Amino acid sequence: MKNRKLRMGMIGGGSDAFIGAIHRRAALMENGIDLVCGCFSINPEISLSSGREYFVPDNRIYYTWEEMLEKEAALPEGERMDFVTIVTPNRFHYAPAARALELGFNVVLDKPMTFTLEEALSLREKVQQTGLTLALTHVYSGYPAVKEMKRRIAAGVIGKVRRVFVEYTQGWLTKRIELQGGNNAVWRNDPKQAGKGGCVGDIGTHAWHLVEYVTGAKVTEVCADLQRVAEGRPVDDDACAFMHTDQGFTALLQATQIATGEANNIRLRVYGTEGGMEWRQMEPNILIAKWHDRPEEHIRMGNGGDFLTDFTKWNTRTPAGHPEGFIESFANIYRNFALTVRARHAGETPTEEMLDFPNVEDGVRGMQFVETMVQAGYDSEQKWHKWVEK
Amino acid sequence: MKNRKLRMGMIGGGSDAFIGAIHRRAALMENGIDLVCGCFSINPEISLSSGREYFVPDNRIYYTWEEMLEKEAALPEGERMDFVTIVTPNRFHYAPAARALELGFNVVLDKPMTFTLEEALSLREKVQQTGLTLALTHVYSGYPAVKEMKRRIAAGVIGKVRRVFVEYTQGWLTKRIELQGGNNAVWRNDPKQAGKGGCVGDIGTHAWHLVEYVTGAKVTEVCADLQRVAEGRPVDDDACAFMHTDQGFTALLQATQIATGEANNIRLRVYGTEGGMEWRQMEPNILIAKWHDRPEEHIRMGNGGDFLTDFTKWNTRTPAGHPEGFIESFANIYRNFALTVRARHAGETPTEEMLDFPNVEDGVRGMQFVETMVQAGYDSEQKWHKWVEK
Amino acid sequence: MKNRKLRMGMIGGGSDAFIGAIHRRAALMENGIDLVCGCFSINPEISLSSGREYFVPDNRIYYTWEEMLEKEAALPEGERMDFVTIVTPNRFHYAPAARALELGFNVVLDKPMTFTLEEALSLREKVQQTGLTLALTHVYSGYPAVKEMKRRIAAGVIGKVRRVFVEYTQGWLTKRIELQGGNNAVWRNDPKQAGKGGCVGDIGTHAWHLVEYVTGAKVTEVCADLQRVAEGRPVDDDACAFMHTDQGFTALLQATQIATGEANNIRLRVYGTEGGMEWRQMEPNILIAKWHDRPEEHIRMGNGGDFLTDFTKWNTRTPAGHPEGFIESFANIYRNFALTVRARHAGETPTEEMLDFPNVEDGVRGMQFVETMVQAGYDSEQKWHKWVEK
Amino acid sequence: MKNRKLRMGMIGGGSDAFIGAIHRRAALMENGIDLVCGCFSINPEISLSSGREYFVPDNRIYYTWEEMLEKEAALPEGERMDFVTIVTPNRFHYAPAARALELGFNVVLDKPMTFTLEEALSLREKVQQTGLTLALTHVYSGYPAVKEMKRRIAAGVIGKVRRVFVEYTQGWLTKRIELQGGNNAVWRNDPKQAGKGGCVGDIGTHAWHLVEYVTGAKVTEVCADLQRVAEGRPVDDDACAFMHTDQGFTALLQATQIATGEANNIRLRVYGTEGGMEWRQMEPNILIAKWHDRPEEHIRMGNGGDFLTDFTKWNTRTPAGHPEGFIESFANIYRNFALTVRARHAGETPTEEMLDFPNVEDGVRGMQFVETMVQAGYDSEQKWHKWVEK
Repeated sequence: MKNRKLRMGMIGGGSDAFIGAIHRRAALMENGIDLVCGCFSINPEISLSSGREYFVPDNRIYYTWEEMLEKEAALPEGERMDFVTIVTPNRFHYAPAARALELGFNVVLDKPMTFTLEEALSLREKVQQTGLTLALTHVYSGYPAVKEMKRRIAAGVIGKVRRVFVEYTQGWLTKRIELQGGNNAVWRNDPKQAGKGGCVGDIGTHAWHLVEYVTGAKVTEVCADLQRVAEGRPVDDDACAFMHTDQGFTALLQATQIATGEANNIRLRVYGTEGGMEWRQMEPNILIAKWHDRPEEHIRMGNGGDFLTDFTKWNTRTPAGHPEGFIESFANIYRNFALTVRARHAGETPTEEMLDFPNVEDGVRGMQFVETMVQAGYDSEQKWHKWVEK
Repeated sequence: MKNRKLRMGMIGGGSDAFIGAIHRRAALMENGIDLVCGCFSINPEISLSSGREYFVPDNRIYYTWEEMLEKEAALPEGERMDFVTIVTPNRFHYAPAARALELGFNVVLDKPMTFTLEEALSLREKVQQTGLTLALTHVYSGYPAVKEMKRRIAAGVIGKVRRVFVEYTQGWLTKRIELQGGNNAVWRNDPKQAGKGGCVGDIGTHAWHLVEYVTGAKVTEVCADLQRVAEGRPVDDDACAFMHTDQGFTALLQATQIATGEANNIRLRVYGTEGGMEWRQMEPNILIAKWHDRPEEHIRMGNGGDFLTDFTKWNTRTPAGHPEGFIESFANIYRNFALTVRARHAGETPTEEMLDFPNVEDGVRGMQFVETMVQAGYDSEQKWHKWVEK
Repeated sequence: MKNRKLRMGMIGGGSDAFIGAIHRRAALMENGIDLVCGCFSINPEISLSSGREYFVPDNRIYYTWEEMLEKEAALPEGERMDFVTIVTPNRFHYAPAARALELGFNVVLDKPMTFTLEEALSLREKVQQTGLTLALTHVYSGYPAVKEMKRRIAAGVIGKVRRVFVEYTQGWLTKRIELQGGNNAVWRNDPKQAGKGGCVGDIGTHAWHLVEYVTGAKVTEVCADLQRVAEGRPVDDDACAFMHTDQGFTALLQATQIATGEANNIRLRVYGTEGGMEWRQMEPNILIAKWHDRPEEHIRMGNGGDFLTDFTKWNTRTPAGHPEGFIESFANIYRNFALTVRARHAGETPTEEMLDFPNVEDGVRGMQFVETMVQAGYDSEQKWHKWVEK
Repeated sequence: MKNRKLRMGMIGGGSDAFIGAIHRRAALMENGIDLVCGCFSINPEISLSSGREYFVPDNRIYYTWEEMLEKEAALPEGERMDFVTIVTPNRFHYAPAARALELGFNVVLDKPMTFTLEEALSLREKVQQTGLTLALTHVYSGYPAVKEMKRRIAAGVIGKVRRVFVEYTQGWLTKRIELQGGNNAVWRNDPKQAGKGGCVGDIGTHAWHLVEYVTGAKVTEVCADLQRVAEGRPVDDDACAFMHTDQGFTALLQATQIATGEANNIRLRVYGTEGGMEWRQMEPNILIAKWHDRPEEHIRMGNGGDFLTDFTKWNTRTPAGHPEGFIESFANIYRNFALTVRARHAGETPTEEMLDFPNVEDGVRGMQFVETMVQAGYDSEQKWHKWVEK
């Protein structure tokens, strides 16, 4: 693996899918990964045309994921794929991921990791048993400014953390566009494909993950309110929660998909005894630091910034003022995942920098988060609910 | 009253107090009010020196509020004050306000209106009995952009309101500065002076009031979490709540005074079926309108804006691009209050525009809000609490 | 004068005029000035109705400025006005201002100070002869953040100043609205009322003044381009210039009134060897400091800010996060002017803080600026033009 | 070429160079280009280690560009590279580019295109003779919001263009860091490597190009001021110009590299008779539209935006709210270049969308711009200078 690029396969990601294209760009951008095979759609015609569009040879374009995994596993080591990226609706994450691990393939999965918590626990077991690597694309933790925030908080620059506010505001589900069909909203609002959570699974998990990622704390208890605001929608499209954590601080989480006119508005704020930090995803290259005794600082990301940690610069590609975005953030997960896979393949221990991507443990906790929120969010009597461990 | 300025007296507002000076500027700015008398401090020396600094003649500078009210009442109608502004800690609102009303004086009060809900109910009764005018300085509802938001929502431009987010974030109580003395934090963190609520009364009431003001809805039920984040503080310094309203929409309220580094960060967002509206107090001259099918609009206030309602322009002093601020917002309350007082004095019915200032009913509901939040916010078992009517 | 408010008269400022109302609010806000008389319009009916609206007694409402000045001068010292504010078109500044000075009245004038440079020189002579005080409302220099910028630059925090950019962008003259009549554009675009400069006099002077105010430098030479962009307009509506200064740094000035859609967009940036500073009038409470070796700072104004100079706090009314605006900035000029008038009346030397308002010298230089720009701006051959001293 | 990726070679771009990595990411991101060979440095060791790092086989890693071009040309068509990216200092653009064209290779070049205007004219001749494709990475014209601006202006939505302001503000050359060595400033401030222009060539060309790109106009005449602000610097580090264009409107261009604390601050504003448009590179996903009769619009880029032109969506990868940045903008140039190369190779006429990348003509005009600015910018007598055609 040392003198060659990693070989990537894809399940899902046909030319009619948005997120598949993002995965490919994120994987390929750093010139360390090649796309070598895929089953790009359950529709064979789309799988074939997509594969050709991506310059995959016809004999590596597959029509079922089962066929793909078996045939790839049967190829000689010098040819077969090294890992598989699975970008299908939540309902179809577990089976191919589990089988891929069994056959010795590393895995990249979109969040939420699985359809049920049980599947997540099973997947964790397989990862532990095989020693393989699984990355979960909680993309927002890939942004340099989020990483800078994490490191500064860990270094104590804002003192002891006392209060966290996270919000994730979208408006694209204002209308029940899932009824029109032909869009990403269809499976997301179908409990048979998305699972118990709607908004809470789709974007709530990202918001929750940011809280745990930047602070290092674990949520222990929530008081939540889940709503199905758009009339007749079978899953939640709005969620909020008060959260207790094992570090003593509390967090307020707010996620919605019916905030008409909002694009993809994530805002994370962490306040400690000595200062506060704020980050907004739509202007992602700035970390705002606030102090009780000196002016607010707007810390601009950039690989040459003397005042940034090496950890952040490692995840940055351009000098200050040359904006990076969503795809670069995604690419950080792929790059770090790939380095970890290489290191483990070579029998080496990956460094902390390499291991800095969301993994199967985050996936399990993400499913626990959905489970906890759904239990608490529709309960109108009991205020606080313990984090669902299993 | 027709051919002369209104005559204003003050209780509190000595030269060592911040908010008193704001009241004076707000009152005097429009050239319709004169400051004629006052008991500016419980410290006689400060009262005297303050009065002289404000060019009040010595014989109209008083040393107790009781003396002031009785002596002013005894003056001939052509001389005595028309209304009194009371800017003392919450504990000392009710007695002078009640007595002023009994003696026939109109009243301006800071929020929260009283120390207890019972006092608020009593004050309402006195206002109803006397037919006098009482204004409460919920200053943030005085901003033109908030008024424009209210009118547009009422006109249905964002469709049916479905979700409201309001946040009020401050950091000045991060440290327990009340222990040092000599500042505004002392009485605010003393339950004997401030009442049951800390943050919830001081700024939570403003946040709650904005929700009811812009939507016209009434909160009916809350699930709340009140915290005393700074160690040892006897009152809450952080509060949040899920809220149900009589219009069916829900609101999320968040107020904190321990968000280190935050100045006075109010942000109000209302989302309907067709659009959303956002306002931020620290850039108060912009109203942001968001749509699901067209670009975001940044609507700049200004008295010449063809696209603003007359209601808004009536509350605006400058053309677009000439920023107005906190004091002008305050002045709108005073101007509208003064016009209402004049109209009533002349036996006329004030117009809707004149009556557009927070009144005794807002004051009663504000105290109910504090009562409700305190009951709900420390209850760790029961999730939802009905609005406390009495 | 010690134990009473200053008495203000007005020439112009009828109820149909925007800027007159701003002057009154700015003067009255601080409770140190009363409006006692005025000739509010050349239209006697408007003068009368305006005066009554402002609660001026009928016997102090005048119908010509000549009458007003003579009659006020004839009043006993305990009654007559202390100063006169002149808010008429440029053409009508000099005569009343000159006569007022001759009669012993202090004067407040809007910019540009006069119709011609000769008038400005004459006015300076009268001020010097009488020892009276003249303030010019270059309002933008009244903002706290501009003052903070000035003090920090003087203290050397950004090193030696090397480059200044100032822009003033408006769009209200995009169309030739002066042809419709009935608006502020009429006299401004009539060379017989406004003088030689259009945009250059109306807003260019503000931009130029900010450069000299914050740096303390004097412009020595310009290369300018004046344009009459809207077809048929007789005066410039767009101006830009490269400028040399006596401190060695250069400045780029840009002013326009045909930038469609722009409100009142002033942006001032000063760069030194060690740092840079930026201020934007439409979010006026923030001063941005930029550094070559540390993050950008957003310095928020507020009278409690420990990191602000006393000079700035002296010109600030509210704590951080409570926005101040255009009228407060205007009020700073009036307050400082009033304190200077009082001090001089009492035979005292005004402090540097008191004297911090634009004066007759700024007025003379402003007229020189217009003269210089007009000479240089239409000359298509010669690149550089010396500052016109006379 | 149809069923395979394009094969890219590089001259320059070793692992010690910033811009080379950007070119690789931009080229590879879309999965249509492979890096197959390169002479990555004049230092053979760096060339070798870089090539290996990029997974280039040893036999395609070269040690001089001459060797590389000849050897690649000698490879069978099915193997040899399709185009070469040249990322060397300006001085070393022409020779390899000219030779590459002679040998039948398409070319990607960084700006400014050449060392002298004569070289540029010669390169244009070669491109015309060979019919090959040359792309110039004026990256800022690759941003979706800039393209949206161009299309809207062309469609007349802001009426007739009357005024353009473009600024490009950097601070990284505040100190004479070129004297320390070991950085990008060394060759840029050495006239023997960079050419006649310093700032004017490095970033002034970008600013000028944006003006011509978004309006479609050509500059015809300039009045310029070039400065060497940092003491002793042999080339300009600050430039500004008034510009006349063949469409009648004027533009103000400002570029500087000594604005201490500025990162990469590009701001482009175009005002027409009916509206204005503004774009800022550091928040690149927003296009601001300003109107004289309705509120400002903030148009957010995104491939799903119903209100964006197809042209813009074609150059966009993510839905609104998922920020794209500098690298995606770069990638648009590579993608369009690659599609044009493919189309021409197949004997087809590239579409307008494919041809939307800066080409050799832009390169020639860019060199003319530098020539014109240098002639005008140091001339202290003559105000206006005609555009240098040759």
